[in-house]
Amino acid sequence: MKTAELEVVESQNKKEKPTQDQIPFGTTFTDHMFTMDYVEGEGWQEPKIIPYQPLTLDPAAVIFHYGQTVFEGLKAYRTKDNRILLFRPEKNFQRLNLSSERLSIPPIDEEQVLGYLTRLIQLEKDWVPETAGTSLYIRPFIIATEPNLAVGPAKTYKFMIILSPVGSYFPGGIKPVIINVEDQFTRAVKGGTGMAKTAGNYSSGYQAQANAKKSGNADVLWLDGIHKKYIEEVGSMNIFFKIKGEIVTPELNGSILKGITRMSIIELLNKWDIPVVERRISIDELYQAYEEGAVEEVFGTGTAAVISPVGELNWLGKKMIFNNHEIGELSQRLYDEITGIQTGKREDLYGWTIEVE
Amino acid sequence: MKTAELEVVESQNKKEKPTQDQIPFGTTFTDHMFTMDYVEGEGWQEPKIIPYQPLTLDPAAVIFHYGQTVFEGLKAYRTKDNRILLFRPEKNFQRLNLSSERLSIPPIDEEQVLGYLTRLIQLEKDWVPETAGTSLYIRPFIIATEPNLAVGPAKTYKFMIILSPVGSYFPGGIKPVIINVEDQFTRAVKGGTGMAKTAGNYSSGYQAQANAKKSGNADVLWLDGIHKKYIEEVGSMNIFFKIKGEIVTPELNGSILKGITRMSIIELLNKWDIPVVERRISIDELYQAYEEGAVEEVFGTGTAAVISPVGELNWLGKKMIFNNHEIGELSQRLYDEITGIQTGKREDLYGWTIEVE
Repeated sequence: MKTAELEVVESQNKKEKPTQDQIPFGTTFTDHMFTMDYVEGEGWQEPKIIPYQPLTLDPAAVIFHYGQTVFEGLKAYRTKDNRILLFRPEKNFQRLNLSSERLSIPPIDEEQVLGYLTRLIQLEKDWVPETAGTSLYIRPFIIATEPNLAVGPAKTYKFMIILSPVGSYFPGGIKPVIINVEDQFTRAVKGGTGMAKTAGNYSSGYQAQANAKKSGNADVLWLDGIHKKYIEEVGSMNIFFKIKGEIVTPELNGSILKGITRMSIIELLNKWDIPVVERRISIDELYQAYEEGAVEEVFGTGTAAVISPVGELNWLGKKMIFNNHEIGELSQRLYDEITGIQTGKREDLYGWTIEVE
Repeated sequence: MKTAELEVVESQNKKEKPTQDQIPFGTTFTDHMFTMDYVEGEGWQEPKIIPYQPLTLDPAAVIFHYGQTVFEGLKAYRTKDNRILLFRPEKNFQRLNLSSERLSIPPIDEEQVLGYLTRLIQLEKDWVPETAGTSLYIRPFIIATEPNLAVGPAKTYKFMIILSPVGSYFPGGIKPVIINVEDQFTRAVKGGTGMAKTAGNYSSGYQAQANAKKSGNADVLWLDGIHKKYIEEVGSMNIFFKIKGEIVTPELNGSILKGITRMSIIELLNKWDIPVVERRISIDELYQAYEEGAVEEVFGTGTAAVISPVGELNWLGKKMIFNNHEIGELSQRLYDEITGIQTGKREDLYGWTIEVE
């Protein structure tokens, strides 16, 4: 990997690391961060690992006005024998470039950036926690920095990677969640930015999520923006249904995020000869199958939880309860396999992990 | 107006003002800016006018990751007799609060903030240019500043106002634009954020706008996200059609921006007893009317251009040419009236302007 020009400035004031069992998500950051700048006509330049520090930007920077930005999320895991593993990180940088294309942001060199990430994790390896379920969350992102209020792609950008140790998603053991089927607000639509990991897709869901929480739900299940009928995804997860032994997940249609955990699960199910199909599935079809007692398991998938069983869906006053609010057998098997591979407890038969040496 | 607590720090290094006829939009800023911070549980605080300066934010600030932000755009105009006028600024702050509600951002006190804006313009009055067609562009905006990667509304925000002198939108006289009817990408959909002035709505249009420019169009006309059929708005303008003497503009449906120029034009047309109707209008209906020779004028409306005549629409290989690529009589009359009121050349019969004394 071409990391030759990388400049590294080590922090002289190392922070105290948090107690590993009590790390709230996304508010504690490590000692260093990676930055790289883009200038139109010159390309990406000045890759640097520097002490974690505030950003200084002109108030007219495009990011503040027109939201030209993309991000990724992945994790580094510590194994029992103290190795550090990344899970399919090349998929994240591939997706970052897909998101960037949609947002008219110049692409990064995926291999090169993976090299920089590896170097950053090496430097911060003591920040990767070891308690079961914990990890070091990795947030690569790109923001448009040019000070210019004219609507249009910026001429300068900043790519950054920040790192945040995170506690277990299920500190008291896996607990199925209650989700509201959103019937008023829309997350994304064909021709929009739904398949891109870009900032605007997230804050646009806050109102629906707040409404859902008020009525005792943990998150929302989004329906398609056109018919308000076809199931798309949960707040920050893709979704799977086990119906009469077959696993169904909404097909990628341009408005659904191409989840890397989603992809891994489909690949695993194929290896295991468990039937899995990506297709349109409407909320009516799901409800009918539920009424017939055919829905055996429901689970969300994403980097945060890996597998998050759904115990209950609330849809226009109707309540669907799955597997008696307990985690299903297949959900547990998938969870054990993927987290096992991620943390080195199980053999990685698929070449999914990369060790940071 | 309650501006008592306002702290003012005057800049000691005043910038050179640009030559008034050659000011590119949105890259030159005045000597000062307004800032105010919000802290959950405490409210908006520390209103300040300070020298224009970079912002310092944690790389984990919510604005960089989840796009929780809203903005406004309005202008200050210099009259022949050297007064400075604002055009319906209270409407901008009302709309800012509507946008904020959609993005789960706490509201500002509209009257108070208008007071702060007035004070800022007073201080920067020499920056309001005087050449015909020029003005001082005003950009109020709010960004979520809390460093937190958890998806959800931030606990801290910054409200700012920055000012930028702008040249004439039509330096060589009004010139009708050529617009492409976008058939692939979507700007907004029912239940989304289309009616809010929020960052994500803008960068999501860059790809379509770049495609349009490649084929010789100045911008895109967006169709509704559901049927890809009903006309919504142009890149940064609302749109009006004069068909057989009647003025038609798409009705506000939740995905169209509630333009203040749009509102003013509807009010003017009502005063002038010219029939105007807000309703759904499909691109097919428009094309059919065009084929029948019934489309007399087409124009966009917005703060930047006030009235921007549309000389040509390109839709799936079909070309519609309006009024021989010339500005129509009504477009000219509306332009003259509104810009006349804005710059004090015509009597403000409607109480639309506020003088900054």
